[in-house]
Formats: sequence, structure tokens, C-alpha cells
Amino acid sequence: MQQHFADTLVTRLRELGHPLCVGLDPHLDLIAPLFRRADMRPSAPETAAAVEDLLTAVLDRLVGRVAVVKPQIAFFELLGAAGIGVLERLVARARAAGLLVLLDAKRGDVGSTAAGYAGAYLAPGAACEVDAITLSPYLGLDSLEPFVRCAEANGRGLFTLVKTSNPGSGDLQDREVEGEPVYAVVARALASLTDRLAGPATGWSSLGAVVGATYPEQAERIRSLLPSGLFLIPGYGAQGASAADAVRSFVAGPSGLEGGLVSSSRGVLFPQAAQGASGAKSWERVLDDALDRATDELGDAVA
Amino acid sequence: MQQHFADTLVTRLRELGHPLCVGLDPHLDLIAPLFRRADMRPSAPETAAAVEDLLTAVLDRLVGRVAVVKPQIAFFELLGAAGIGVLERLVARARAAGLLVLLDAKRGDVGSTAAGYAGAYLAPGAACEVDAITLSPYLGLDSLEPFVRCAEANGRGLFTLVKTSNPGSGDLQDREVEGEPVYAVVARALASLTDRLAGPATGWSSLGAVVGATYPEQAERIRSLLPSGLFLIPGYGAQGASAADAVRSFVAGPSGLEGGLVSSSRGVLFPQAAQGASGAKSWERVLDDALDRATDELGDAVA
Repeated sequence: MQQHFADTLVTRLRELGHPLCVGLDPHLDLIAPLFRRADMRPSAPETAAAVEDLLTAVLDRLVGRVAVVKPQIAFFELLGAAGIGVLERLVARARAAGLLVLLDAKRGDVGSTAAGYAGAYLAPGAACEVDAITLSPYLGLDSLEPFVRCAEANGRGLFTLVKTSNPGSGDLQDREVEGEPVYAVVARALASLTDRLAGPATGWSSLGAVVGATYPEQAERIRSLLPSGLFLIPGYGAQGASAADAVRSFVAGPSGLEGGLVSSSRGVLFPQAAQGASGAKSWERVLDDALDRATDELGDAVA
Repeated sequence: MQQHFADTLVTRLRELGHPLCVGLDPHLDLIAPLFRRADMRPSAPETAAAVEDLLTAVLDRLVGRVAVVKPQIAFFELLGAAGIGVLERLVARARAAGLLVLLDAKRGDVGSTAAGYAGAYLAPGAACEVDAITLSPYLGLDSLEPFVRCAEANGRGLFTLVKTSNPGSGDLQDREVEGEPVYAVVARALASLTDRLAGPATGWSSLGAVVGATYPEQAERIRSLLPSGLFLIPGYGAQGASAADAVRSFVAGPSGLEGGLVSSSRGVLFPQAAQGASGAKSWERVLDDALDRATDELGDAVA
């Protein structure tokens, strides 16, 4: 039977009991000494090797403990073609180990170009084949259509930017259009597409939204407009939002609150940087502790 | 002396007498038999070689005849890491031959991620170092800031989506916010940044806008809001806009109308596909004829 992204994801989240998604954002200046090389400039071949070593080790510790990893493609593009090669290998390793991969790429372009992006990431057999991708809505519904078609055909997931977690997100997203903010206009437009990607087992749609944990009231409003869409929720931890704020848009499910993924990148990947000196603990122990803390906190918030 | 993107570009356009920018969008199904290989699936190694052969030949015929080439990164991403390697070599070849390279990537993300994208494409020594890039404004001004800083430091150019050429661009961009459309809100926000990238020689700013040729009246309105920003104007030719519509936002300069770049992709790159059978003419002749037609038409429109 054809896989369905939302059904597969929600089923795994119910088993795990927490909605944590770990972001793979390899900031070069935060990589621990254990993995650093002599030359860490973006164009140095050693840098791609350091990133691959770090993230391979991280992935292996995440298997069975989280449902989803979210590589941020910008940090791989920074390393050029060698970085994209690293990304391809990490994505294949993660999926082979049973993790779902959500590529954070925020792509958006006119129809024929959007079809190119969809083929690059959502088509079976693609060099960098992932389970879901993030999209940008600025160009309009016709720019999302090739992604929706590819997701329908192959059981993939889409998370479109609605209300982002950054301080300046209001510059455009909060402007009022006929009595409602731009983010609500976008959420309404997405709602017209969710049925096409609805999961037969759970009812959740594989067409979801990116909604920052830093704006919990706006998240509740977006939930009312997009009741079946899963949310990808950045901004928890390093960007200051609490676990309770992060899950504000969740609704009751069979084993607790549900409705999407709460992502943490630096807080899990670079706990040393987030917490200052780590004393005598090993790298693995520091990562495990950060992961336990996040999954416990989010598990409590949805219990 | 530090290069300045807008000054360099406008100076070259005045010398050439036309604003044509050739888009490098290697649609796999449009590649001529001369360059095709047995297996043209995106993941086949031969496919990347076919694209590199085609675009190397195209680039060599464009040198001295256009100021700018615009690779669309989606079509290279479709080929995986091998495709990004092809893009890196083509970009280096184009710049070594004196062409400016504008990467069509429509990137946009929160601050630290945006800095990663800026480093990937606008930093000296980057594996895929280009002269300018296209950006998406949905996340707000703080998401553009790392690109503006990198462009200021290194004399690069930025073209942010304002009013795109596709039929669905109005879904969001035309919605009215306090009496003016979203695209005007974005243009006003960009206007607050243009002075930081103003060219000392020409007065044109390296912070420009993407404005579809298919919406000439909207282009005039955006010109009034963003008087010093260069426009990247897609939609001429294959998408149906005339040369006169494409340059509607241009203003009088020392050697004719000026104000940006008019881009054509399929019309020049795949003239056989655009025109049906090409008879007995060689591939080179068909490309040269298409290029002459576009430069003559646009040259007349700005004369």
C-alpha cells in the first residue's frame, strides 16, 4: 500500500508520546572540538567531512527516539556540491533507519520551476528523496500546485510558511487584508487544498503549515482556519518559546494532544553552545541529556 | 576598487544597447537531440553531462552579446549533487568570460539561515560564487538583512520578489492592505533599503525587484515606489509579454531607456521548442537567430 505522510507521521508520534523534531542545522562555528578539522572554511573539503561525521553520529543517536529529522538545506548549500553530497547520504541513512526526513528548503517558484523542485526532493528515486518539504507561498496557489500533485502521487508531505517564528515576520504576515492578517489569508488558501492530501487512517492532511512557537495566539487562530493541517512549529527552545506555547494549537487525539511537530535545532544539536561549558560529560551524554530534556518537556505538554 | 553590481551592470547594458538577460533553465524534455544521451532521467549521471554540454555551448555563444546569464537553480538541484557541480563549473566559466551571473534561487529564511544562503552564493571564494541572487520577502525585513549586509560588503546584487509573472501571482500579491496591494507594501519596504546599495557611478541600487513583464501597469506603480531599484523582468517571450510591456517601467538614461533586465529563458535556450521544426538550420544558427531577434526587439524598445 502507498505510504501516506500524515498517517505515518501521526502514528509514530502517538507511539513516541512527544512531537519533537530535531533540526539538522550544522552551524560551522558551533561544531564541537571533537568533530572540528584544521580548516573549517565553507569551501574546504575537510569541512564537509566534519559536518558529515557530526551529523552521522547525531542521526545514529536519534533513531527510535524521534519520528522526524529536519535538515536545513542552506547549511549544506553553503558547502557547495560536496555539501549536497553529504546531505544526500545523511538523508538516505536517516530514512533507511526508519526516520522520516522533512527538508527545510522554503522553496517556491512558478509552475514549471516548482515541478523541478518537486522532482528534486519528492519524486521516488531522486538523489535527495525526502518525505516532506517546506514551501513559501508568496507566488500564489499555482506555484504550490506542482508540489501538491507530486505529494498526492507519492504520499509526501508539504509544510507551507504561514506565520514564521522570527521577530520581523509581522512586516508582511501581520498586515491586514479585508479585516484579517495576511497569515490568515494564506491559511485559508491552504485549507482549500488540505482535503486532497487527507490521511485515510488519521484524518490529518499531509498539506500543513509552518507556524512559529513564538506566536501562540496566532497559532490558535491558524488552527481554526486549517483544522486538519499538521503544523511544523519552530522557535521552541533557542528562540525562546516554552513547550506549552509550542503546542498551543494542538487538539485532543487518542493518546494526548496532537497536531504537528515541534522543532528544535541548536538546543539538541549544539547543547554545549546553548548551555555554556558542559564540564566532564562526554559529547554523547550531553546530546542524550538535551534530547531527554526536550522530549520530556514536550511529552508532558501533550500528555 | 570594489566592484558594485548595479554600476557594473548598467554600464554594460548601456554599451550593449539592450537589456536582455538569458535564463539558463535546462528543462530536460526540451534539450535538442544533438545533446541528448540514452538515459535522460534526472538521477542518471549522463543527464548532468548532457546539461553541462548544452549550457557550456550556449554560454560560449552568449559571451560579448549579453551582460547577464540567469541560471535557475531548481533544474540543477533536480540532478542532485552532480547537478550542483555542473552549476558551479558553468558559473565559474561564465564569470571568467566576463558575463555577470544572477542566480535565480528565490531564497528566504530566518536570520542565521539567511546568512548561510548569503555565504553560499555571495561570499568571495564560495563554491558557487555569483554576482546577484533572487530572494523571497515573505519572512520580512530581518530575513533580508543578512543578504543586504553581504551584498554591501562584497558589491553584490539582490532582486526580491515583488510582483511575479505567473497567473496566480495575484492570490497574495494583489490583496489590498490599507488601500494598496501587497506588492506595493513589499516595494515600499525595499525602498527603505535601496540607499545602502546605491551605485556611486549610476545612482542605480544593487537592491532591486522581480516584476513580471506580464503586469506592465503594476510595474509602473512599483517603479514609482522604488525609483532607484533595478528590476528583473521575467515573462517576456514564452510567457506572452511584448518587448514594449517588458520595458514599461524603464526611465530615460544617457543612451536610451534603462532600469533593469528583461529575461528570456526558453525563447533563447530552446528556440526549436518555441518555434516548432527548425528545418535545415544548425543548432548554432537557430540559437543565434533567436538571440538576435530578442536583442533587436528589446534594443528597439529601449532606443
